[in-house]
Amino acid sequence: MKYCSRCGGAITRNIPPGDTRERYVCTQCGEVFYENPRMIVGSVPEWEERLLLCRRAIEPRLGLWTLPAGFLENGETTAEGAGRESEEEVGAPVTIGPPLILVNLPRIHQIHLFYLGRLEKLPSSPGHETLETGLFTETDLPWTELAFPSVRLTIEYYFQKRRERRGFPFHIHDLRIERTLQPVAK
Amino acid sequence: MKYCSRCGGAITRNIPPGDTRERYVCTQCGEVFYENPRMIVGSVPEWEERLLLCRRAIEPRLGLWTLPAGFLENGETTAEGAGRESEEEVGAPVTIGPPLILVNLPRIHQIHLFYLGRLEKLPSSPGHETLETGLFTETDLPWTELAFPSVRLTIEYYFQKRRERRGFPFHIHDLRIERTLQPVAK
Repeated sequence: MKYCSRCGGAITRNIPPGDTRERYVCTQCGEVFYENPRMIVGSVPEWEERLLLCRRAIEPRLGLWTLPAGFLENGETTAEGAGRESEEEVGAPVTIGPPLILVNLPRIHQIHLFYLGRLEKLPSSPGHETLETGLFTETDLPWTELAFPSVRLTIEYYFQKRRERRGFPFHIHDLRIERTLQPVAK
Repeated sequence: MKYCSRCGGAITRNIPPGDTRERYVCTQCGEVFYENPRMIVGSVPEWEERLLLCRRAIEPRLGLWTLPAGFLENGETTAEGAGRESEEEVGAPVTIGPPLILVNLPRIHQIHLFYLGRLEKLPSSPGHETLETGLFTETDLPWTELAFPSVRLTIEYYFQKRRERRGFPFHIHDLRIERTLQPVAK
């Protein structure tokens, strides 16, 4: 960030009066620009006894498997965003159920919120961000080819709770991973 | 948003290739600027059988009562943010417990997440954003002087669940209120 988006002036970093943190501040008009974590919303889509995953057609993690999810947009609720992203990436409608897990990723300034989802019909062709979709049980799931740590964590939590057969209590988990994510092996 | 924060070029609104929504885009370097909802995190601080509220010393809603809460910062988890904001506004430590409620406010591009909290000692003097703090039961609470609809909703949910004596299940609620918030009367 070099220029003020309001007046075009030069940007500096300092702690504004009454604040406790360094912010981007315009040296010309004084505007303060705050940066805040972003929310990623998605679902864990069930089809009978199996889970749907999407193989990514885009970077990062092209070719690896993920749950359908993406950035929450202005103007939508978290469930609406999770449904929109799921339908876009899966290529078929997903009914959004109760919230399952919220994963804090403070190092990369993200919060990932996953809902339980019910796949309403089998996709004929996936969305443009997805190479292919697959339905998996816990044992045949591509554990060594998962795209993101939060996806692994969410899938593990989902199967653990399903095995316990006492419902899916909402859970918050903190993942203090580094900025550069690496694919994770089981 | 008029100028590109990266190159200083003029900003326009259009739908980038592969996207479905209008974004701020630089006419000079092509940078796309995404806008996403922000998270507000806070707590419902209990002291024995009463709830602590803060009377706001700042706009908006100066002079009205609220739960301690504020914008989640980069680098912190939702619970850390809730604890920081609570301590800052209350003027005493608040131990953050389980998550209680997430309120979607899609019209104002915010998500409010409140945790159950335990006030660890009575504040001697409140933070600079707070005129005074008060401890209230459900009946003596200043219902007609609450600052925000999401605060009213959270307090109502909290007391409802406390009366039912079956714990505090995590709950997501959508509030489709208008951009200009008005103080709400009971």
